[in-house]
Amino acid sequence: MHSMLTLNYTDGLIPVVVQDAETRDVLMVAYANAEAVELTRQTGYAHYFSRSRKKLWKKGEESGHFQRVLRILVDCDEDCLLYVIDQSGAACHMGYRSCFFRTIEGSVVAERIFNPETVYAKKKSIKSKSRH
Amino acid sequence: MHSMLTLNYTDGLIPVVVQDAETRDVLMVAYANAEAVELTRQTGYAHYFSRSRKKLWKKGEESGHFQRVLRILVDCDEDCLLYVIDQSGAACHMGYRSCFFRTIEGSVVAERIFNPETVYAKKKSIKSKSRH
Repeated sequence: MHSMLTLNYTDGLIPVVVQDAETRDVLMVAYANAEAVELTRQTGYAHYFSRSRKKLWKKGEESGHFQRVLRILVDCDEDCLLYVIDQSGAACHMGYRSCFFRTIEGSVVAERIFNPETVYAKKKSIKSKSRH
Repeated sequence: MHSMLTLNYTDGLIPVVVQDAETRDVLMVAYANAEAVELTRQTGYAHYFSRSRKKLWKKGEESGHFQRVLRILVDCDEDCLLYVIDQSGAACHMGYRSCFFRTIEGSVVAERIFNPETVYAKKKSIKSKSRH
């Protein structure tokens, strides 16, 4: 791999903003540790670290909705990443293409594109499940 | 103000992704406390909480580069916000329109649009100054 900037992790994690390369929608925000960043660079597929499950996570490993990473950008303070990606299916575990499907007042501003009950059939409760 | 979703703050803060409504570029990521969110909703201008300076901060108060907030979106876990904004000048204190002006390998992929030494003339060292 090419050399890279030194990143500033907080408690071992760095936030990652994920943007769809085609629609340019912001799809989600997740967290990565150094290993997840390295695996993302090596494989070209988005990896994160789940704070709730405390484990490394390849986006799409359950849903099949992988993220091919076209470009990784770093912010001025080197404490945040931007993955510009090609999203298969949907980024949000609730069935929306973007996790940002509601206004702060609670209005839904997007269409559901899959039924999470089907995609995550093995899980008993999808509502309580955080993907981040 | 209209009622709003209950947000999940961590240590009193919630990360905010900031997207340019026109270019759709991701401009920056900052943090807000409940007061900053409320002021943003009330005034229509982006407010944040600076973790380094430990104070509420209206974006543009020093640089004049304000952010008019057109829409606030919330993610599925209610632990992240997306401000869709109209940016005057530049979002980045280093003179770039977006804070994400470099790849992870360190290549600069944007043009500087102002000289930070001029805009933040009162400050001795711009390099050590974090805006977040």
